[in-house]
Amino acid sequence: MDKDRIALPVPISVSGTLRGVGVGPGDAELLTLKAMRVLRAAPVVAYPAPLKGSGLARQIVESVLSDGLYRIEIAMRMRFNLDRTSAQTAYDRGAAAIATHLAAGRDVAVLCEGDPLFFGSFAYILARLGDRFPVEIVPGVNSIAACSAVLQQPFALLNDRVVIIPASRPAAEIEDALVKAESTAILKVGRHWDKVVRVLDRLDLRRQAWHIERASQTGQQVRSLATVEATVERSSTYFSMILVYRRGERWLR
Amino acid sequence: MDKDRIALPVPISVSGTLRGVGVGPGDAELLTLKAMRVLRAAPVVAYPAPLKGSGLARQIVESVLSDGLYRIEIAMRMRFNLDRTSAQTAYDRGAAAIATHLAAGRDVAVLCEGDPLFFGSFAYILARLGDRFPVEIVPGVNSIAACSAVLQQPFALLNDRVVIIPASRPAAEIEDALVKAESTAILKVGRHWDKVVRVLDRLDLRRQAWHIERASQTGQQVRSLATVEATVERSSTYFSMILVYRRGERWLR
Repeated sequence: MDKDRIALPVPISVSGTLRGVGVGPGDAELLTLKAMRVLRAAPVVAYPAPLKGSGLARQIVESVLSDGLYRIEIAMRMRFNLDRTSAQTAYDRGAAAIATHLAAGRDVAVLCEGDPLFFGSFAYILARLGDRFPVEIVPGVNSIAACSAVLQQPFALLNDRVVIIPASRPAAEIEDALVKAESTAILKVGRHWDKVVRVLDRLDLRRQAWHIERASQTGQQVRSLATVEATVERSSTYFSMILVYRRGERWLR
Repeated sequence: MDKDRIALPVPISVSGTLRGVGVGPGDAELLTLKAMRVLRAAPVVAYPAPLKGSGLARQIVESVLSDGLYRIEIAMRMRFNLDRTSAQTAYDRGAAAIATHLAAGRDVAVLCEGDPLFFGSFAYILARLGDRFPVEIVPGVNSIAACSAVLQQPFALLNDRVVIIPASRPAAEIEDALVKAESTAILKVGRHWDKVVRVLDRLDLRRQAWHIERASQTGQQVRSLATVEATVERSSTYFSMILVYRRGERWLR
């Protein structure tokens, strides 16, 4: 046998694949078939979680992961507040633990509410590990789709312009969005309730505005802004948004 | 027996339920568990389709509907072009056929690519029948999520402002969006390619822009706008979008 022609072993990548898995807005049935397959096969599952308890992303897939198979679980525990220090530390530690498994050749599925890349927490893991390991994204149903489904009203049609803006942005920017877009989603209303309602009042858009909390989750709530007493009902949660459709009822025709 | 206490029959609604079912962006595995359950149980399935063939929405669920069970199928056949007459006629006829089944007590599942209420065709059926029959929406994974998954890059993070704008809108509006939003999706590029590229050039945003065709479908293509010869490669299709993320690589840190 010609020595020169001996086949050298092809270098084999021993890395596992890092998978960002969108688990949808809350209803366990809104998981995709792909997410279910990936989670069932994953030897390691990681997810952001509060200091105590399992957190929404993990809760959504409870029935999928209750199949009696052993999995390593990495709960990235953090305070959910405005100070990002706790979260950054949790993602640093989580990424280090995930990297150990990936380097050993184990696939890791990172759970993410909604879609992994649409205001999703998976970005923080991707930023830390994306250049070192193979990556796959499993897209998911986002919370705007869940809110539209509750309202049974189109979020956008034909050549509509759409703006999605967190309620933390300045009132002038929210107003600019509402004036120019046929459809606006104002995210994470929480403590910005008063500011947002004032802008809606100024533009006389309350009748076309809906406040949706925990769409597709337990405790789902829908309120028309037209009937809300702005000064009284100023409470809202992080899992909430206001959808405004300037076409109003006119989308029907 | 006291005649006054005889239980009168409770009026029973004999109507079936009209379900708008998002079937996701193309990959059959991106169907949700709920969509699969609803489709398997549905005695009647309706969908928009071209004059010949089955159309994308029906193709996506081929494996789900190939279970040997008999279903009535309503193909709403139309020309896919700018003149909406053919589509409106098809939706009028389709809605009439669907209404007959609903009135007879049969549930009808209407297939819709992506999410039913996010630039989805289901709005046209909802507009015609939504006030006459019970409605349920099954949200789906939209095409922006599919494109982000291909790029493996966040579409939005933290307090980002997002604009979603069809390429048919005036250049000034697309420019305004690109200047103000951290993240912009320019939909249905098609014959508007030249106009969009000129705007990107004016703002020097080509390096942060990606053109994605048929994400998650057969024939998926991704091109960086930085390397595209604008004057040569001016072709695009309806199933295409340009994603622009002004943060560029900075989202990483």
